[in-house]
Amino acid sequence: MAIVHPFERPLRIRFAHCDPAGIVFFPQYLVMINNLVEDWVSEALGVPYAELLGRRRTGMPTVSLQCEFTAISRMGDDVMLGLTVERVGAKSLTLQIGCRCGDEQRMVVRQVLVFTSLDTHRAIDIPSDLRDAIERFTSKA
Amino acid sequence: MAIVHPFERPLRIRFAHCDPAGIVFFPQYLVMINNLVEDWVSEALGVPYAELLGRRRTGMPTVSLQCEFTAISRMGDDVMLGLTVERVGAKSLTLQIGCRCGDEQRMVVRQVLVFTSLDTHRAIDIPSDLRDAIERFTSKA
Amino acid sequence: MAIVHPFERPLRIRFAHCDPAGIVFFPQYLVMINNLVEDWVSEALGVPYAELLGRRRTGMPTVSLQCEFTAISRMGDDVMLGLTVERVGAKSLTLQIGCRCGDEQRMVVRQVLVFTSLDTHRAIDIPSDLRDAIERFTSKA
Amino acid sequence: MAIVHPFERPLRIRFAHCDPAGIVFFPQYLVMINNLVEDWVSEALGVPYAELLGRRRTGMPTVSLQCEFTAISRMGDDVMLGLTVERVGAKSLTLQIGCRCGDEQRMVVRQVLVFTSLDTHRAIDIPSDLRDAIERFTSKA
Repeated sequence: MAIVHPFERPLRIRFAHCDPAGIVFFPQYLVMINNLVEDWVSEALGVPYAELLGRRRTGMPTVSLQCEFTAISRMGDDVMLGLTVERVGAKSLTLQIGCRCGDEQRMVVRQVLVFTSLDTHRAIDIPSDLRDAIERFTSKA
Repeated sequence: MAIVHPFERPLRIRFAHCDPAGIVFFPQYLVMINNLVEDWVSEALGVPYAELLGRRRTGMPTVSLQCEFTAISRMGDDVMLGLTVERVGAKSLTLQIGCRCGDEQRMVVRQVLVFTSLDTHRAIDIPSDLRDAIERFTSKA
Repeated sequence: MAIVHPFERPLRIRFAHCDPAGIVFFPQYLVMINNLVEDWVSEALGVPYAELLGRRRTGMPTVSLQCEFTAISRMGDDVMLGLTVERVGAKSLTLQIGCRCGDEQRMVVRQVLVFTSLDTHRAIDIPSDLRDAIERFTSKA
Repeated sequence: MAIVHPFERPLRIRFAHCDPAGIVFFPQYLVMINNLVEDWVSEALGVPYAELLGRRRTGMPTVSLQCEFTAISRMGDDVMLGLTVERVGAKSLTLQIGCRCGDEQRMVVRQVLVFTSLDTHRAIDIPSDLRDAIERFTSKA
């Protein structure tokens, strides 16, 4: 059985994701995850990611990552990427992220992101509008 | 203080590794790690990686990955990537991988790789020449 | 004014597409183009790309590429990628590909693809079902 | 016969460069080219690329690109990338770039780069120290 998350987005595995072994090259999974977090911030939290990084100079670099690759994905597979908030800290966010193909779990990830100023690259408190939006998201989920 | 590994290779952080925040985009670190493992197999173990994947149809996909990103890397930084064998299983290999810039640790990774047949994508025993070479590497290290 | 193509797909420019200058890193444009051609083959020609490359062992490598980058694209831009068939040869295909953001042309590409056997990497005649589907596409366009 | 350039750097084709067809994925060639130009600026012109992009806020985006892929490259191939200056304009630079494996030409590229301010993304005159260094490079070549 696969984990269903409160925020999910479908994705087709493409030629450009795959390696000479014909399966997803694992760093490409991390690019997919980065895109999913971007979509979640823009669409579920309602804060345009490009504006956060651009005008507001607020970054969300990854400080910790645990990935289990439980089954391979091949070119042409239609997978579902999903995200659950596990913990909200003062300056950081822990996410559970998964990739499934129907009922088959392909990958499970725990990712810790920290909010930073892009001017200093130092950690900052989670901006209050984002914190409020994350709370609304988790209370609905 | 940073960890020094028995197998190390220098790398310059490039424009192509970096993101709009001006620092290494974390999936690019995983590409660097993949290249390091490739170099270790070819150079330290003496088994040409292209031949392993090509003629011998033996894959080494990643099944588990834990990464701690402890400090940022910027374009132009001259870093050192390094690798230590932590555990040799029947069909899998656990590696400790690090990235440091001088004395500053940038990243610490534990990666579990499994040996597979590229025809079936199923796990196989570590080929005996590779097992012997890994044992020679670890006994020297 | 920007060129409107008979096959078009929208795309949001993401963090992962952009470089330290904050604009699309040009090799990422080529990945986008590859994905567009993949969608065109699967959706407009009705031949699943993964099956073509996989079971049928037929490749479509690029042999020639001319790109003009006429305006920059930034993170968050919603662009339209489009494709027109310029010429159908015995073994090759010439495509006109563009990227526009509303009325502003961002990129114009001419790409020549050749059909190959993935067993020999030699050029082969365009498979007849693909040729027929391309002709239906161009006669409608 | 293959073209020998006045600035050349060797490169091993890696797993991460290759696609499910087992050959270099063409956008990866463009990443290699970008790295080559970076090395040429830093090493042959003596202007650290990271400082140019970073402290001096001067970009070198590609405005035009013509590529001919004349033979495939496979994982494990040891290729040579090379660069010749074709033309120096007021604000732009035209380069001839090639990839060869021994005597076999793999790729020929003509690339036009323009110098820009990273604050405005507008074209600027080639900085005088770079212009002088380019002239020294071309007169020696």
